[in-house]
Amino acid sequence: MSQPSVDVIAIGNAIVDVMAPSSDDLIAELGLVRGGMTLVDTDRARELYDAMGPAREISGGSAANTLAGLAALGARCAFIGQVADDQLGEVFAHDIRAGGIDFTTPSREGEPPTARCLIFVSPDGQRTMNTYLGASQFLPAEALDEAAIADAAVLYLEGYLWDPEEPRAAMRKAIAAAKGAGRKVAFTLSDAFVISRHGDDFRKLIEAGEIDILFANQDELAALTGESDFDAGVAALAGKVEVLAVTRGAEGAVAVAGGERAEVAAEPIDKVVDTTGAGDLFAAGFLFGHVRGRSLAESLKLGAICAAEIISHYGARPEADLKALTASV
Amino acid sequence: MSQPSVDVIAIGNAIVDVMAPSSDDLIAELGLVRGGMTLVDTDRARELYDAMGPAREISGGSAANTLAGLAALGARCAFIGQVADDQLGEVFAHDIRAGGIDFTTPSREGEPPTARCLIFVSPDGQRTMNTYLGASQFLPAEALDEAAIADAAVLYLEGYLWDPEEPRAAMRKAIAAAKGAGRKVAFTLSDAFVISRHGDDFRKLIEAGEIDILFANQDELAALTGESDFDAGVAALAGKVEVLAVTRGAEGAVAVAGGERAEVAAEPIDKVVDTTGAGDLFAAGFLFGHVRGRSLAESLKLGAICAAEIISHYGARPEADLKALTASV
Repeated sequence: MSQPSVDVIAIGNAIVDVMAPSSDDLIAELGLVRGGMTLVDTDRARELYDAMGPAREISGGSAANTLAGLAALGARCAFIGQVADDQLGEVFAHDIRAGGIDFTTPSREGEPPTARCLIFVSPDGQRTMNTYLGASQFLPAEALDEAAIADAAVLYLEGYLWDPEEPRAAMRKAIAAAKGAGRKVAFTLSDAFVISRHGDDFRKLIEAGEIDILFANQDELAALTGESDFDAGVAALAGKVEVLAVTRGAEGAVAVAGGERAEVAAEPIDKVVDTTGAGDLFAAGFLFGHVRGRSLAESLKLGAICAAEIISHYGARPEADLKALTASV
Repeated sequence: MSQPSVDVIAIGNAIVDVMAPSSDDLIAELGLVRGGMTLVDTDRARELYDAMGPAREISGGSAANTLAGLAALGARCAFIGQVADDQLGEVFAHDIRAGGIDFTTPSREGEPPTARCLIFVSPDGQRTMNTYLGASQFLPAEALDEAAIADAAVLYLEGYLWDPEEPRAAMRKAIAAAKGAGRKVAFTLSDAFVISRHGDDFRKLIEAGEIDILFANQDELAALTGESDFDAGVAALAGKVEVLAVTRGAEGAVAVAGGERAEVAAEPIDKVVDTTGAGDLFAAGFLFGHVRGRSLAESLKLGAICAAEIISHYGARPEADLKALTASV
């Protein structure tokens, strides 16, 4: 088994976030679940966009955000995801490549357009996401470059993309390619709704040893394990994956690996502007520590710092110099 | 002459800003003039975009930014400008309408695409703009709704759009419509390059009494009057327009009207993040004061507060509540 030349290759939604400040009243009027993620069709996306205030567009996508953080920290990264041949697709491709991430998945001709996520940001920074999957859901298994997957230390998969059929098949193929090459597979559960639909798949993958590094927040942990008690949830999974990292919002995060358990408090920040991408950037910092052989506690600290950076401004792509912010860890 | 039902109707570029933080070294390497505005063609736009870091997209356009500020302050506004029938055109139209501004110019089919401005933002907040005019330069005179122009107290025109031929003709027609209806015409000189190409037009319009309210920065004032001394420049124009407002960057602004002269200092702010739109938002605040019958000093103060808000964050559209920020004026 040769040394991998890439740290992390990820498969995820290739999506542009459309974000606007919003009152909680508007979120309620529109029938949105504050803090949640909902899939929307063309008509509903139009309706929500029409109701949204003046917005800004910033590339997003959970796994892509994580790679943006990893690359900013100095990791070598590659991304696999499906954009359409349109202006938002160009925006997504530009931003990920400009971050130093290898991205070669060909854009897809014709309809539907590139995915977008309409994000209503509450005054307290909570984000309410409405995802129009567009082209993203048509990532074909043939788009995978198995040699590239074999050449990365870690394959990182986004749970959101387990929902549509074609990308799910692509991700199963990618897991086989990574495992066949002796690489590690990392998986983020993404959202409770994904677990409600595909929890059995995830539990089977975990039992079969297909997932080495698992990221979850506390709600996803409860949904996946059926344990409402946090420690019981951690205990239920801890022995089944090599590394388990669970975020707890303002309470920080916990990680368990090889019988060791570590915790980190959330970093203090002046003002929470927009929580979009907090989990994604925690994963970036943690995974960077992991692939660089840092301790569990240091990896958690890296995750906490990156998460704090992302919630201090609009958008889920880092703005500050993450290397400088994490230099003291 | 009936009471106008709209405060300000503006004609300007319908453009989306693509903004990224940049080192001054990169700006120099790319051969850009730091702080300037340059028109770019398709190939140069592609080259610059490829060299740009991860970016964000925020609706822009000088006059459109001014209207966004005016509407946020409570003015009734309408916009005339040309987008293409594409995703960035949708973004522009959404954002301006979501700000409460009437915008009915039909989008234009086919090539070229909607205008964009590639903005490199230096560490000190200085912006270097590269404008691809796209569809914006094809605003036809037939797109003007003369009844709408006659129904607005002020017609506001953006100097940038005087450069391409079709919008120039449209603006000449708009001036005639406004004047015919007994309305005021406001004009912003936009950039020294516009004056170098069209200064004779502007001087003739001013001499002919076609411009009632003139906005300039100190460089534009010097270019238009040929006076390198600031006070001499102000004196050269002061009697020729009803209202003259000149911004001086960090030194604040000066206005002259009806023989009265007033000055305002720049508002103190914590950190200049991005100066894009500073002049546009100064014009918004000042013009709001003017149409509401406020004193010259109060109008200047409103302008200074709005300019300070816009340079405290990325993008030239207001994020904070301008009504609240200006409540004490």
